[in-house]
Amino acid sequence: MTETKQLNLANVQEARRRLADVAHQTPLDYSKTFSEITKNQVYFKLENLQKTGSFKIRGAYNKIASLSNDEKARGVIAASAGNHAQGVAYAASKAGIKSTIVMPEGAPISKIVAAKGYGSEVILAGGGYDEAFRCIEAIQKETGATVIHGFDDLDIIAGQGTIGFELLEGLPELDLAVVPIGGGGLIAGIAFVLKQLKPSVQVIGVQAAGAPAMQLSFKSKELQETDSAQTIADGIAVKRPGKINFQMILQYVDDIVTVEDEEISRAILMLLERSKLVVEGSGAVTLAALLHNKIPVTGKNIACVLSGGNIDVYTISLIIERGLIKSGRYLRLRTVVTDRPGSLHKLLKLISQTKANVISINHDRISPQVSLKQAELELALETRNQEHIEQIVEKLVESGYHVEII
Amino acid sequence: MTETKQLNLANVQEARRRLADVAHQTPLDYSKTFSEITKNQVYFKLENLQKTGSFKIRGAYNKIASLSNDEKARGVIAASAGNHAQGVAYAASKAGIKSTIVMPEGAPISKIVAAKGYGSEVILAGGGYDEAFRCIEAIQKETGATVIHGFDDLDIIAGQGTIGFELLEGLPELDLAVVPIGGGGLIAGIAFVLKQLKPSVQVIGVQAAGAPAMQLSFKSKELQETDSAQTIADGIAVKRPGKINFQMILQYVDDIVTVEDEEISRAILMLLERSKLVVEGSGAVTLAALLHNKIPVTGKNIACVLSGGNIDVYTISLIIERGLIKSGRYLRLRTVVTDRPGSLHKLLKLISQTKANVISINHDRISPQVSLKQAELELALETRNQEHIEQIVEKLVESGYHVEII
Repeated sequence: MTETKQLNLANVQEARRRLADVAHQTPLDYSKTFSEITKNQVYFKLENLQKTGSFKIRGAYNKIASLSNDEKARGVIAASAGNHAQGVAYAASKAGIKSTIVMPEGAPISKIVAAKGYGSEVILAGGGYDEAFRCIEAIQKETGATVIHGFDDLDIIAGQGTIGFELLEGLPELDLAVVPIGGGGLIAGIAFVLKQLKPSVQVIGVQAAGAPAMQLSFKSKELQETDSAQTIADGIAVKRPGKINFQMILQYVDDIVTVEDEEISRAILMLLERSKLVVEGSGAVTLAALLHNKIPVTGKNIACVLSGGNIDVYTISLIIERGLIKSGRYLRLRTVVTDRPGSLHKLLKLISQTKANVISINHDRISPQVSLKQAELELALETRNQEHIEQIVEKLVESGYHVEII
Repeated sequence: MTETKQLNLANVQEARRRLADVAHQTPLDYSKTFSEITKNQVYFKLENLQKTGSFKIRGAYNKIASLSNDEKARGVIAASAGNHAQGVAYAASKAGIKSTIVMPEGAPISKIVAAKGYGSEVILAGGGYDEAFRCIEAIQKETGATVIHGFDDLDIIAGQGTIGFELLEGLPELDLAVVPIGGGGLIAGIAFVLKQLKPSVQVIGVQAAGAPAMQLSFKSKELQETDSAQTIADGIAVKRPGKINFQMILQYVDDIVTVEDEEISRAILMLLERSKLVVEGSGAVTLAALLHNKIPVTGKNIACVLSGGNIDVYTISLIIERGLIKSGRYLRLRTVVTDRPGSLHKLLKLISQTKANVISINHDRISPQVSLKQAELELALETRNQEHIEQIVEKLVESGYHVEII
């Protein structure tokens, strides 16, 4: 298909057949919680539960399956430290061909281990894009391997488009699909399929405010790049959107909106707490857009694509702490108590009177920063809101404790 | 059905009909990761994605549906701060009847809010079990409401048993079901159904080592209580197992094993990282048992019931940090740098040479604990293992930094 310049529905149907035994048909789950909050009927397309933890396997496998036997024999290369790397690595191993993944030095160790686990050779190349590119060129010259692009490729787009079929089959009364945009492969495929099968469906893309290249291009109707792409949603931090994708987006997508990192973090936290789902930043932008009224609709049947779940657990831990601190539901404080029986008990009694729940206590007798008869105490408390926090601190200070909020 | 003393399959089928529009038929998902690790074919029954976040809705709704109109008019009461509370609250609201939930003072604020959100009246009663019991007695006398027990009730057991049908329909070649045990309602229902429909299936229960009352009872063939029930898996921290449940477990369950809190935490973390699923402690015991070889089988088709996802996000954050620290994948350290241009850069360069990834930097110029020309620095680093951590600390110390690991 590499010679054709346009996608047709048969290409996507072919991709579906190829993917039948390789990728999951992921659930399209109704969310009562988020339907009530947004006053719509919200369904989540759970590509975070997809193999390799994101939708990227769909496009990557379809591309690899479309290669000639000769091309397959020479293997494939991809440059990515993210979901595309895992998608290509897994797809290549399923197809039984050799793959090389070029990652920047400093790539998360878990990603390196995962790609190696699928049998890929992993090469760590310099820091920047240029170095990775030179490295790929060199490998290609030496081995004749095919470079698998992350999004700017019709076979990749056809693979991602298979999600469009699944959305309509799961929810024939679909009114609106909300889809993340980085390079544009996912939304190009989905929008193409939806507009062929049910032209009345709206398709809205979501970008991170810190990486809005496709939105800029869409608004100006001219392909644009950005100098930087800074966002917590690293999966869609793309400076240079795809050319093919851009043309298809102009044709099939109704609008593109952006969300701030704050809003993305909040959506990640709510998905964890309320839906029991681990969703990465680039996957949570769609819910973030709905929650923060970037897409002002009500009463609609909305499919919100949660495109991946590959967020590292450190980040989860940070998002949880920050989110709770911000909403006044968490208080960490340091204080000093005299190191004798009963003094800890006295403090805890005081705290229990404020109806805050103690989450953790760190009691440090030997800290060099306090005198010998004293012990430093670090407390983490569950609180109700900001006002509650102020009451607690006030009460402790009134009772003679020195309180440091950390 | 309250008059009969034994369950029959028709009771569970009736429960299924009642639940059809109320509870999800949750996915039974194959896990490649855990199949490979445990050398079995492992399927997860995702009751963490159930409405209210746990299986408890099944029993609670079935019980409420079995009440007479007269009983329904008087409402229901339950004493629980956990999943049972949410199950009863939601089920009552679905059935359109009044519910009162008695929780201990100090119950997590999120649980109180959630039950109220389903329209329940929430009463906070003292600290202990006795106070809650007296409170329930008083309400019952006053209102004539029906007390919904968490597990020791045939209608509750029949409701939980509906999972048994779903396991066999999703995986007819099932060899082994692994099910958490607290009071015993879930496993009693599932084991009953499985042994009727496919007697060759093994059913193994898992308890937390800190709350092993049902295991003790099972081994001694006599119902036993424990004085305490201390475990991170609060959903199965039961001192007094159910009588009916115990009799059914003796009859239908093949064995009961226990897992330590450490093992449960590890399973929670792995489910987050590898399967993108939020699972609470009591739901993760089943995977913990498989991972830590408490159930030494290979080559089997195993359904592992992940019974709930209601773990608070503070706990998730703690488990992540501890888990990473323990495996040497995380290092938090405090150091002091002179507060002038370039000094931060110099330190970061040193760290990048060790190939550790910087997760977060906290730069504090005004800390009272350092002199005015210095700045305190808190760093969180992603590391490879314990040896890597030692190398980093050594390198910093050699270069003249004072390092405090926190």
